[in-house]
Amino acid sequence: MNPLAEPADAVIEARWVIPLEPARDVLADHSVVISGDRITAILPTVEARAKYQARQRFELTGHALIPGLINLHTHAAMTLMRGLADDLTLMDWLNQHIWPAEMKHVSEQFVYDGTRLACAEMLRGGVTCFNDMYFFPQAAARAARDAGMRAGLGLIVIEFPSLYAADAQDYLSKGLALRDELRNEPLLSFCLAPHAPYTVSDKSLRQIATFASELDLPVHMHVHETVAEIEQSLKDHDVRPLQRLADLGLLGPGLIAVHAVHLEPREIELFAQHGCHVAHCPSSNLKLASGLAPIRALLAAGVNVALGTDGAASNNRLDMFAEIRLAALLAKGITGDATALPAWQALEMATLGAARALGLDSKIGSLRPGKFADLAAVRLDGIETSPCYDPLSHLVYAAGREQVSHVWVNGKLVLDDRQLTTIDTQEVIATAAYWRARIGAQ
Amino acid sequence: MNPLAEPADAVIEARWVIPLEPARDVLADHSVVISGDRITAILPTVEARAKYQARQRFELTGHALIPGLINLHTHAAMTLMRGLADDLTLMDWLNQHIWPAEMKHVSEQFVYDGTRLACAEMLRGGVTCFNDMYFFPQAAARAARDAGMRAGLGLIVIEFPSLYAADAQDYLSKGLALRDELRNEPLLSFCLAPHAPYTVSDKSLRQIATFASELDLPVHMHVHETVAEIEQSLKDHDVRPLQRLADLGLLGPGLIAVHAVHLEPREIELFAQHGCHVAHCPSSNLKLASGLAPIRALLAAGVNVALGTDGAASNNRLDMFAEIRLAALLAKGITGDATALPAWQALEMATLGAARALGLDSKIGSLRPGKFADLAAVRLDGIETSPCYDPLSHLVYAAGREQVSHVWVNGKLVLDDRQLTTIDTQEVIATAAYWRARIGAQ
Repeated sequence: MNPLAEPADAVIEARWVIPLEPARDVLADHSVVISGDRITAILPTVEARAKYQARQRFELTGHALIPGLINLHTHAAMTLMRGLADDLTLMDWLNQHIWPAEMKHVSEQFVYDGTRLACAEMLRGGVTCFNDMYFFPQAAARAARDAGMRAGLGLIVIEFPSLYAADAQDYLSKGLALRDELRNEPLLSFCLAPHAPYTVSDKSLRQIATFASELDLPVHMHVHETVAEIEQSLKDHDVRPLQRLADLGLLGPGLIAVHAVHLEPREIELFAQHGCHVAHCPSSNLKLASGLAPIRALLAAGVNVALGTDGAASNNRLDMFAEIRLAALLAKGITGDATALPAWQALEMATLGAARALGLDSKIGSLRPGKFADLAAVRLDGIETSPCYDPLSHLVYAAGREQVSHVWVNGKLVLDDRQLTTIDTQEVIATAAYWRARIGAQ
Repeated sequence: MNPLAEPADAVIEARWVIPLEPARDVLADHSVVISGDRITAILPTVEARAKYQARQRFELTGHALIPGLINLHTHAAMTLMRGLADDLTLMDWLNQHIWPAEMKHVSEQFVYDGTRLACAEMLRGGVTCFNDMYFFPQAAARAARDAGMRAGLGLIVIEFPSLYAADAQDYLSKGLALRDELRNEPLLSFCLAPHAPYTVSDKSLRQIATFASELDLPVHMHVHETVAEIEQSLKDHDVRPLQRLADLGLLGPGLIAVHAVHLEPREIELFAQHGCHVAHCPSSNLKLASGLAPIRALLAAGVNVALGTDGAASNNRLDMFAEIRLAALLAKGITGDATALPAWQALEMATLGAARALGLDSKIGSLRPGKFADLAAVRLDGIETSPCYDPLSHLVYAAGREQVSHVWVNGKLVLDDRQLTTIDTQEVIATAAYWRARIGAQ
């Protein structure tokens, strides 16, 4: 060993390092060096071997190393309702199945158990960070922390009572108290999360706008998911929902507008002018028949678009590989232009774009020295990705989440050759079966 | 052991048997009994244990057992060009990348090696039968036979010369000779496969119609994939391609029309009247920006629609689970009706519907005593499919091909706990790398 070698906690040698910054780079036979919770260097493997003395060395000779994927919109705990009801109209699905099950079963324990299952699924699929919106965010926070996963916690606000809170004011104060309590947790960040324009009043939205500005918090909200909500707003408020949000002061670089399926050109312009972000959830939009979001037009206008899975009740997988591929395919199919949303850009929407939406792009979303060490290794040397002309293409069009072999969050190995290190898989599966028996029997 | 027990080659005990006939049946804790190449019984596992003395017994306690999936349209050998060129317009992709690579590299060895790789990928994904269209079908036949996989071989006809044949006449006679030679092979069947209306002359199409009728062979053909081919036909023939095929006598219950993206209501009616089948390839249609096939309208008119992956150069996976899910999601998204194409029907399109299109529905496509034993077992007890309220929903919306654990073709176990029994995986991967080096260097 070279006596002058620098110490490092881990050196990950990969067939390819795909840093996402610069966007299209593919670094063959490179290594990523980790010390503590940070990436400290990225360099050719031959140089890394000479330069570093690592506590742990990973030889991933057939793998691409990428930034951990970021799921910009989910309701993690809803994994416990995965496949409970499908092939139904949105209103039937919500009114007859999802909401009754939620009213009856959603508790702090439900949210902890469901979020833990979601963390297990996401980590196994290369997702290192998720942006959540659900009841009992304190339970989701605990589940993410126990799993060693990064999370953006949505401090949900809705006018309807639940077992979690009584009214909008109660939701808001509980959320803000939680944020005060956990604001120094290294893996956690927070968004204000008014559910949707049609479930939150003007008064509450004004308050949220004020808090967002005072506390510098992003706002995570469903916007223009369906035609029906737009028609309802025109009836109730005389304006479309986005105009109402604009009037209430909610548009700005902190807004993460989820879905954004139905947009007039003027509204795309509005997003662009205010520097808003869109969380595109293509599987959910198709499955609930919400429609086809105008992603190419949003990108052309300069809007930052990133990807989310939505909850497992409307997807039914928390699989960012599936969303990346579907986003890339759909953009081509609906525009008639096969060059729309190329592979590198779809991957960026699941990494750096999502980090930007969360205001975390200086910390995560790409592989750069100084950023937190959130990474995923994807095996590209199996049957399904043979031959390999271009690893970027394979990551988007050919690979599946099952090809993720190793995942690190904040410098810590959380998936080791497909085995979770922070979660007891069999216990999580057994707990899910317990909830199925309870919920399915209703 | 019960001395009166009946002998069987294999008894597969499954948590659920999903026979596809009747369409929505889910049989909990049932067993499928195999003797020789056939399914001989399906019965509750407690009864099967008492009744049968099996040479082999499989205890698949967390699995759904389904008919082997049938890929109704592919160009199997094109796996060797997987990811060679993406994010390009169709004409650029074909003229600058795919056709030059094919002219230079496609040989009998290429087709054997590429088809073997495709068989490995498909078997690992629960696909037991594929309907192929490519040059050197004798090499594809050999690869399928060596892999122990069922195949429909397209006897390709195109007016352009290739290393395989000089002109349409030469393609046709080579194809028919191959079919004569191999017609008694138990795993093989044959289709006449004129490439597309725009690449085959009236004269050749008339001949093909005659042979199809005389020899009772299906016709497997690309039809109305793009707007451009329809415009070209209007210019060259004064009619749209489908009308031209009708005029030439090609419409009938033997026609498998691939893609069928751009259809007028009258053309949907034409398919229905003639009992034609449609091979829907949703990933490929999106990726090449061909458009969105009107699947719900076709189904409503009574047309049999089944699913295909297309070739790996335009998909880039031979993954029927992905096509099933995408077909089910797209049908909802583009019609605005979340009840369109429910899970059971999407699964039928990948099994019994495809068998029907191939004229093989009395032999394969569902689990029934007397049918050939083509089956796939899918694990549904892992993280990604927990909890499980409805195995049919999970097969379509939540499961991926990596959850396929065991596959049988014609009664023979070809995938055993994720390991191929008929194909040397490492050799196939090494061969693909050899071709990548040759093709990538051009």
